[in-house]
Amino acid sequence: MNTKKKKLVVIGGGTGTYTILSGLKHYKDIFDLTAIVAMTDSGGSTGRLRDEFGYLPVGDVRLALTALANEEDEQQELIRKLFLHRFDTEGDVSGHNFGNLFLVALTDILGSEELAIEAAARVLNICGKVIPVTHEKVHLVAEYEDGRVVVGEHDIDEPREHINSPIIKLSLTSPAQITKSAAQAIRSADVVVFGPGDLYTSILANCVVRGMQEALRDTQSELIYIPNLMTKKGQTTGKGVKEHINEISRYSGRTPDYVLINDVSFSHELQNRYAKYGEYPVKQNYDGENPKIITGDFLASEEIIPKKGDVLRRSFIRHDPHKLAAVLVSVFGDKKTSSFTSF
Amino acid sequence: MNTKKKKLVVIGGGTGTYTILSGLKHYKDIFDLTAIVAMTDSGGSTGRLRDEFGYLPVGDVRLALTALANEEDEQQELIRKLFLHRFDTEGDVSGHNFGNLFLVALTDILGSEELAIEAAARVLNICGKVIPVTHEKVHLVAEYEDGRVVVGEHDIDEPREHINSPIIKLSLTSPAQITKSAAQAIRSADVVVFGPGDLYTSILANCVVRGMQEALRDTQSELIYIPNLMTKKGQTTGKGVKEHINEISRYSGRTPDYVLINDVSFSHELQNRYAKYGEYPVKQNYDGENPKIITGDFLASEEIIPKKGDVLRRSFIRHDPHKLAAVLVSVFGDKKTSSFTSF
Repeated sequence: MNTKKKKLVVIGGGTGTYTILSGLKHYKDIFDLTAIVAMTDSGGSTGRLRDEFGYLPVGDVRLALTALANEEDEQQELIRKLFLHRFDTEGDVSGHNFGNLFLVALTDILGSEELAIEAAARVLNICGKVIPVTHEKVHLVAEYEDGRVVVGEHDIDEPREHINSPIIKLSLTSPAQITKSAAQAIRSADVVVFGPGDLYTSILANCVVRGMQEALRDTQSELIYIPNLMTKKGQTTGKGVKEHINEISRYSGRTPDYVLINDVSFSHELQNRYAKYGEYPVKQNYDGENPKIITGDFLASEEIIPKKGDVLRRSFIRHDPHKLAAVLVSVFGDKKTSSFTSF
Repeated sequence: MNTKKKKLVVIGGGTGTYTILSGLKHYKDIFDLTAIVAMTDSGGSTGRLRDEFGYLPVGDVRLALTALANEEDEQQELIRKLFLHRFDTEGDVSGHNFGNLFLVALTDILGSEELAIEAAARVLNICGKVIPVTHEKVHLVAEYEDGRVVVGEHDIDEPREHINSPIIKLSLTSPAQITKSAAQAIRSADVVVFGPGDLYTSILANCVVRGMQEALRDTQSELIYIPNLMTKKGQTTGKGVKEHINEISRYSGRTPDYVLINDVSFSHELQNRYAKYGEYPVKQNYDGENPKIITGDFLASEEIIPKKGDVLRRSFIRHDPHKLAAVLVSVFGDKKTSSFTSF
């Protein structure tokens, strides 16, 4: 019996990363977890704090830390809840996530974002590590087929004007180097997972950092990609699984070994609700052999009703943390499978 | 040998209470500590949060909790530092104390200020208890001899217009009842200490709450008063120790048993610096027998240089936490002394 833990690295940011880490942390005997998160968030509470303090963006770090936090100890569970708390008032503090303020205050006191993340990880007693993909302060730049250029993750996510043209190039405002710890985690990984998460602003935002392609080329690890369930308006409209895989291969320099695809369909009512936002199910239009497709029911059984201050306030459906974790455990936790697997 | 701990209750709020509690917590084998703090702060970060959230003021609670926090455990020490941290930027969050935001977030999550204070006390692992004097949301009202009326602690502390007239009446915007736990702590106390702290806005702000006089009348405890070292412009200008004692007796319904008076004088340079703010040493003009005067060197040996975000940023001199604690231990910790004592 092989009792050695597998080193699993999740690369992403945002609520998709929160989801998968929330599931994986229950398998800490099987996986040694590391989350590498994008450093280009520029919206909401994070964006305001970037402007006010000039620190690295804190939102994706906060979500990953919270996902990996210990929920069993009463004190740590309270701090975890505080990290997820969003002030919902009318005033200066309104809209800020308390966890973001916690990370900013720690950075003030300890003198660096790195030390702040380490301290927060201890306070929350997280299982695993959370590593920023870079320590450099940069923003995303998206170039569209129609010639437009949009700077900043927030404006790419929620364009100020209607954009009906695909992104043809994603880059950064200036070159940024991958952190040593992120590169090291990838090089020594057994399994690297991209996603779930928005293709450009959460996943590829990590790949446009210098050194990411080299780390992915050097590692012996399997590369798994979990596309989002729905397209993202102004980013992946019209793109199916095939186009998602192509973009991942193009920016990461590696073709994924496996792609996890949910094969449970959503109700028409739900699809209509998404359609109002210009978002549609990601079509399974891929029939190649490399990467291999792993299909199954990876859907959260309960529809998410957005609540005030909720982490997932914009999602109606999402991946199920436990189903995602279970398939990763089953396929990569013990011994590798090379056969097409259905769940 | 009497090994039973003495129940000591400090009544006040603000930096004076922070000072004395910081000293007393090192004698947790001798004293069972309770801090009762005023609920009428309306300035700075606390005032902004009162306006935004409508909760009880958090600043005095935060200071008392921080003073009593465990400094030995590394995690708790970090949280203690966070509680004292003040954001010093240009933006929405600027000027807010992180500890205040922590208490507000806890109140959001737990549903009441009482539960929030209890939770923060556990997170900081404080030695003792911190109790709001009332749970009712009220403001201070000061009436001056010249007929003016000022509402709100902040405006009384820092009047918008020049006031050269003594306060003749302190009251609240509406009646507020003492909390059960505060009344109980006073009734079962062995020693009750008023101060150090601003006479009207920190100490008497507790006495204008309904039920405070009754609790002080019913308790068997000794009552100690520690006046501030300096007068407060617009509040106690021209008042000596005698007038301070008279106001304490008038509002608390009890004459203190002891008054602790520092007898070390300050340099002329320091006095000149205070004089620029219209503040002068509180003159020892009292020669009665009840209360008894305990004199000694209670002065912090080092002059406080105000730092950015410092708790004590407006003070140049202050009481020494350890000297204050030592005299209380010596006089009340073991057996009572009824003789005039000099330190």
